[in-house]
Amino acid sequence: MIEDKHQERTPLSSLGEFGLIDHLTKHFEIKQDSSVKGIGDDAAVLDFKDDKVVVSTDLLVEGVHFDLSYMPLKHLGYKAVIVNLSDIYAMNAEATQVTISVAVSNRFPLEALEEVYAGIQLAAKLYNVDVIGGDTTSSTTGLLISVTAIGKAKEDMLSYRDGAKPNDLLVVTGDLGGAYMGLQVLEREKEVFKVNPNNQPDLDAYTYIVERQLKPEARKDIVTLLENLEVKPTSMIDISDGLSSEVLHLCKQSNVGCNLYEDKIPLDPQVISTCEEFKIDSTMVALSGGEDYELLFTIKQEDYPKIKANPNLTVIGHMTEKNEGANLITRAETKIPLKAQGWNSLAND
Amino acid sequence: MIEDKHQERTPLSSLGEFGLIDHLTKHFEIKQDSSVKGIGDDAAVLDFKDDKVVVSTDLLVEGVHFDLSYMPLKHLGYKAVIVNLSDIYAMNAEATQVTISVAVSNRFPLEALEEVYAGIQLAAKLYNVDVIGGDTTSSTTGLLISVTAIGKAKEDMLSYRDGAKPNDLLVVTGDLGGAYMGLQVLEREKEVFKVNPNNQPDLDAYTYIVERQLKPEARKDIVTLLENLEVKPTSMIDISDGLSSEVLHLCKQSNVGCNLYEDKIPLDPQVISTCEEFKIDSTMVALSGGEDYELLFTIKQEDYPKIKANPNLTVIGHMTEKNEGANLITRAETKIPLKAQGWNSLAND
Repeated sequence: MIEDKHQERTPLSSLGEFGLIDHLTKHFEIKQDSSVKGIGDDAAVLDFKDDKVVVSTDLLVEGVHFDLSYMPLKHLGYKAVIVNLSDIYAMNAEATQVTISVAVSNRFPLEALEEVYAGIQLAAKLYNVDVIGGDTTSSTTGLLISVTAIGKAKEDMLSYRDGAKPNDLLVVTGDLGGAYMGLQVLEREKEVFKVNPNNQPDLDAYTYIVERQLKPEARKDIVTLLENLEVKPTSMIDISDGLSSEVLHLCKQSNVGCNLYEDKIPLDPQVISTCEEFKIDSTMVALSGGEDYELLFTIKQEDYPKIKANPNLTVIGHMTEKNEGANLITRAETKIPLKAQGWNSLAND
Repeated sequence: MIEDKHQERTPLSSLGEFGLIDHLTKHFEIKQDSSVKGIGDDAAVLDFKDDKVVVSTDLLVEGVHFDLSYMPLKHLGYKAVIVNLSDIYAMNAEATQVTISVAVSNRFPLEALEEVYAGIQLAAKLYNVDVIGGDTTSSTTGLLISVTAIGKAKEDMLSYRDGAKPNDLLVVTGDLGGAYMGLQVLEREKEVFKVNPNNQPDLDAYTYIVERQLKPEARKDIVTLLENLEVKPTSMIDISDGLSSEVLHLCKQSNVGCNLYEDKIPLDPQVISTCEEFKIDSTMVALSGGEDYELLFTIKQEDYPKIKANPNLTVIGHMTEKNEGANLITRAETKIPLKAQGWNSLAND
């Protein structure tokens, strides 16, 4: 939250558009076999041979999806890549390339854009994807990042949202609600900072959840794990808008119902303690808080033995006939209909 | 330029994010064989079999790339698709899919977004590309459109920027400078309108150039034409930033020089007359005015007989050894070095 007033500031206009793109992308290496030609022509050229190609795209907008008063620029670049890779993994596919477009106002110096690109480069390196194209342009106000992620899979490995059947088990990776509670902590500290700018926040008690918000990871490891376990999800989606909204997507597109058990929802102890501190119901946070980028999928009952011992995977319910509806079975064993109360960017500004 | 104050205004927030995306994309049909799965899952799924895949991406930002005081929203949607398809054709490839992301502030009602999407849909239909994904989100201020275009080609058909050889002929499609002069006319009329809002512009004398600016087309036809003529360009690029800048790209990436003949540059009579009216040099406009979205390419001398009779194609020069440099040979037969003075979005705000 401290802004260094004495940092280097090179105006973007000093490089020109082509110079800027060259400068920012010169460190990007091409590693994937499927990348024939990366940045530097009218279009990139890719070769997927017999694999199917998967494509997903997302926009991150300053003031809507992120707040630069607590989101470091490098983290932002990292997160912009991660949220898009998550969509590729949610198809049970391997992410291979991304294109990155950035619109930025002249209030940002070159050094700020370099930070964004350092985060992009780090994510690309850790997730083994090539940056094969993009655009850098000015905006009249804030910062905006548009990413398109590309991946590949054998046709019979792809998991869509519409393949769940009644009696399939509903499985979630990792734990939920952390990113949302991290945001609550950051928002609170921002208010404190506004009142007293000399008051430095102590975030030690919130390390995990703040990192879930500022530096989320995508579950590339789960795609590999499922392949090793020889489990193919019957349906799959990533959790970007909250568990409840994603469960309803699977139910609607698969034409099934669902019983989701409140007591099975995986929560990190730091999420629980922070929910108590903020007097927020932790189940509500898991159901409606977004941005965890965990995977939610269904598997056949017969595959249960293959996954049951795995600490990354939690069975949280099962699918039912459509006419039974999509329900939360509470700790008190009452059944209440699930509602999508995920985050709505259009209602938030 | 007339704004109807009594138009329908449905607030975007009334639909919610998923409702909005459903509403805007429900008319998009999937027609390409290579589109296995379009909008509606975490990612689209494509199948290109033996073809190479080409990918390009571009951002259009309000106040930087377009001005809504004279750019109708439907034209804007159309243009956003066209400028991206142009990059695919510049690879000598067939455009097959696009993803579209739109960031929009709440000052725009649903009806405005519908106009943008109507333009996108029209372009997709006319150019036979499928809209297979995207994102719609709010922005804190203006309108921004990010498009990723995907195409395919047989490996031996692809034309890169780096294949030109000395003595290859330099060829341009259509005519140049129209989009830039159309913009000058629109900017002038905007100033007139600001002074007297009742004064309706008479654009009859500028129909062609205004359309070049507001509703550009991409040269899909040229890719087909070249195939039919059995001419494979040794290098190719599209003209988005002005002829001079694009010629220099080909020279630099192909490691060659070039002689470009001023008297060969194709200009429409309306461009010439408007340049006279504005007291601007028409050669400068063709060299430095952008957004014509014509194709610039090089061919072997031996292919000249195949193209010489074609009204769509003009030979404007030839490539030389690198040490001769990239030059404009003026009407007065003097040789002056070409300079890139293309439009720089980063210096313009």
